[in-house]
Amino acid sequence: MNTTTITAISTAPGIGGIAVIRVSGQDAIEHCNAVFRPKKKPLQFLQQEANTVVYGNIVDAQNEIVDEVLLTVFRAPHSFTGEDVVEISCHGSVYIQQRILQLLIGQGCILAKPGEFTQRAFLNGKMDLSQAEAVADLIASTSAASHRMALNQMRGGFSNELIKLRSQLLDFVSLVELELDFSEEDVEFADRNQLKLLAAQIEHLISVLSESFRVGNALKNGIPVALVGETNVGKSTLLNVLLNEDKAIVSDIHGTTRDVIEDSINIDGITFRFIDTAGIRDTKDKIESMGIERTYQKIEQAAIVLWILDCTQLSEHIEWLTDKIEQRAEGKKIILVFNKIDKIVEEEREVLNQLFEQFEGERIYISAKNRLNTDELEKALVKAAQLPDVQPGDVVVNNIRHYEALQNALKAIQRVMAGLETGISGDFLSQDIRECMHFLGEITGQISNNEILENIFGKFCIGK
Amino acid sequence: MNTTTITAISTAPGIGGIAVIRVSGQDAIEHCNAVFRPKKKPLQFLQQEANTVVYGNIVDAQNEIVDEVLLTVFRAPHSFTGEDVVEISCHGSVYIQQRILQLLIGQGCILAKPGEFTQRAFLNGKMDLSQAEAVADLIASTSAASHRMALNQMRGGFSNELIKLRSQLLDFVSLVELELDFSEEDVEFADRNQLKLLAAQIEHLISVLSESFRVGNALKNGIPVALVGETNVGKSTLLNVLLNEDKAIVSDIHGTTRDVIEDSINIDGITFRFIDTAGIRDTKDKIESMGIERTYQKIEQAAIVLWILDCTQLSEHIEWLTDKIEQRAEGKKIILVFNKIDKIVEEEREVLNQLFEQFEGERIYISAKNRLNTDELEKALVKAAQLPDVQPGDVVVNNIRHYEALQNALKAIQRVMAGLETGISGDFLSQDIRECMHFLGEITGQISNNEILENIFGKFCIGK
Repeated sequence: MNTTTITAISTAPGIGGIAVIRVSGQDAIEHCNAVFRPKKKPLQFLQQEANTVVYGNIVDAQNEIVDEVLLTVFRAPHSFTGEDVVEISCHGSVYIQQRILQLLIGQGCILAKPGEFTQRAFLNGKMDLSQAEAVADLIASTSAASHRMALNQMRGGFSNELIKLRSQLLDFVSLVELELDFSEEDVEFADRNQLKLLAAQIEHLISVLSESFRVGNALKNGIPVALVGETNVGKSTLLNVLLNEDKAIVSDIHGTTRDVIEDSINIDGITFRFIDTAGIRDTKDKIESMGIERTYQKIEQAAIVLWILDCTQLSEHIEWLTDKIEQRAEGKKIILVFNKIDKIVEEEREVLNQLFEQFEGERIYISAKNRLNTDELEKALVKAAQLPDVQPGDVVVNNIRHYEALQNALKAIQRVMAGLETGISGDFLSQDIRECMHFLGEITGQISNNEILENIFGKFCIGK
Repeated sequence: MNTTTITAISTAPGIGGIAVIRVSGQDAIEHCNAVFRPKKKPLQFLQQEANTVVYGNIVDAQNEIVDEVLLTVFRAPHSFTGEDVVEISCHGSVYIQQRILQLLIGQGCILAKPGEFTQRAFLNGKMDLSQAEAVADLIASTSAASHRMALNQMRGGFSNELIKLRSQLLDFVSLVELELDFSEEDVEFADRNQLKLLAAQIEHLISVLSESFRVGNALKNGIPVALVGETNVGKSTLLNVLLNEDKAIVSDIHGTTRDVIEDSINIDGITFRFIDTAGIRDTKDKIESMGIERTYQKIEQAAIVLWILDCTQLSEHIEWLTDKIEQRAEGKKIILVFNKIDKIVEEEREVLNQLFEQFEGERIYISAKNRLNTDELEKALVKAAQLPDVQPGDVVVNNIRHYEALQNALKAIQRVMAGLETGISGDFLSQDIRECMHFLGEITGQISNNEILENIFGKFCIGK
């Protein structure tokens, strides 16, 4: 049980109509009482009923009024953190927010570290670790899919199942370890067939979860799309058209703890993250140059490649280039985008089609400038993304920490399975089971250490 | 009584730990009920007690959960707007904020215009107009003084006194106008001596309030300080030193409805707003040029001029320049700042002093680069500002609209006083009294029209 009382501004930084300052800890109500004068019943704030709001003034040491505020009181354990919590809703001036914070610190409150409220909720058993991580994901969510994944995870997600399977493993490993105490008697307390069944069940669940990471990661961080093309084919015009139409929500984001999301668009709930590449110049001797090599490397980071061509002037070695890009983009989706289609006639289009007869990927004819068929291109992107829609209740792993722990747990449980087949000795078996349990426990936070916690909660925003 | 129900995000824009969405109007509770599922007592939200908080989920039309939230219910007339109000405290993701707003709009809520919540508070008699304006000032306040002025005004300020005096004027004007009905009988219902006393009292109050505007405006908008100097004398280094040391709070501000405050610092609770000027070049023929003329114009906007010189190399016509600046800055405070003082020896300093023997203003010797004596410069700025400290309860006019109305009321009441001296006829007297009442009423909002209201509340931020 943490004995300090923490405080922070919980709303977005800057000026707003109102702002909320949160105070949590065993002295939360007392510290707030010291700087608060309720309008009615002036002496009874300490007895304020849980889940009620009271109107009054925040005052400083000279009894001068700092602001008119509303205070909401929550009492342990029925609060977000599981501790006594007071939320101060004040006028949203930066000056007022800072002054109130200073007054609370003067009373003995400690400025909360990023994510410390959620960390306390975890430490007080209000949620497991993967649920706590989902709180940060929820706050950072920018699309229907990432929002839904975070919400599913926050509401339990796969952790309940992992906890159940882990506790069954614990039963088994205890029996296996008991056998070791009686090793001279060659007894078998743990039913190996039941253990095989359990291991198979765990292996199946972990595999499914691991596989969901490809989708989860793409949904959370966006699907990387490389825009490749020679200079002046209309790459930036196209990018601007795509961004302008859909950037509304994404561009609102700032002040988040994640890297600033740049040049991302959201189509049908899927986020696409554009990787801009240097224009490929059409002089053959430069094709081998560093710049182009870097473009190729960026292609390798992408899941989808938009290969943009200018219909009106294909460079002489366009086929050679296309081949080269196809080679480097093996296993990725390539969409061939013919730009400036409004500038050519039907016959020229036929010639183009014949020229790229061998090309197997999708091809789209657009005019970026006139926004002709750009919606077709968006549809092609969604199709190329091939992401299943996340449904309410679907469990999708989108956290690299969980993914790594699952991969490690998978290896361990596969060793358990192999060991059971070959009739490995109890002490080796026990070690592999313990290792699997360790990694499953890391996900839910049953196994955790300060370093893991600091790493996780340090990425939160302050005030949550 | 407004029959629509409005909603808006009331916290600062962007991502935060939490965000608050406010709903106000006769259907606020019903509209929220349609999208809210309390965790406990699921069917009783409509009966939710006033000033209490309830935990649950916001759901969409498909009953899919959008977020876990806390709802606070206020019931008319005991709320900020005087209407039923629900405050939804949700996770601070921009996506979630927008989704909840959309759901509420889907239920029939209307997106609130800037300041519309406060406007409703005014229209429902929760506060007068000058108090409503103080809410915006409070939110925008960045210094102890501007914060205190706004708070004093929000808590009543001078409006109570104006309302009282105005109602006394109304009594008199009614009697004067009654006399007009009996004009043939030459009666005098209104005691001219009492009216003289009242007029003198009003004239005194309005004068005091008007005079406070100089201070109020400087405190609210910052005291304009022009930095003047030749190129390379260390102007920008000095500005950076001043800004870096004190900008912490000011730089936090964004998303406000006012112009972005640039290059302002706060010393001892007083805001100084720096007007950067083009560097004066030391070739004589360019001195007459447009650029320099613009610098002189900026000097005219300033209340304080920092005239910065490089100790190590005074240009040949520095005296001539100084004279010229002194001329243009007549009536303003000039502070002569000798920079790079660490680079010269005591004897050279003596020479400098003799050179500027005639100069009457303050002079400070600093090294901006080494932060030598820059605190002395700050003290000199505070001294030059010559602003009285605003005390709790002090009434200071800082609003240009109020100032203009006061000026007009002052002229009218002075005409009343003159008319009483000369024994002006009742109909003229009545007209002047009515005019004075009109302008006093404009301040408190007893007289208002849509244009005035739109103008005032349009400057608020959304959600307040």
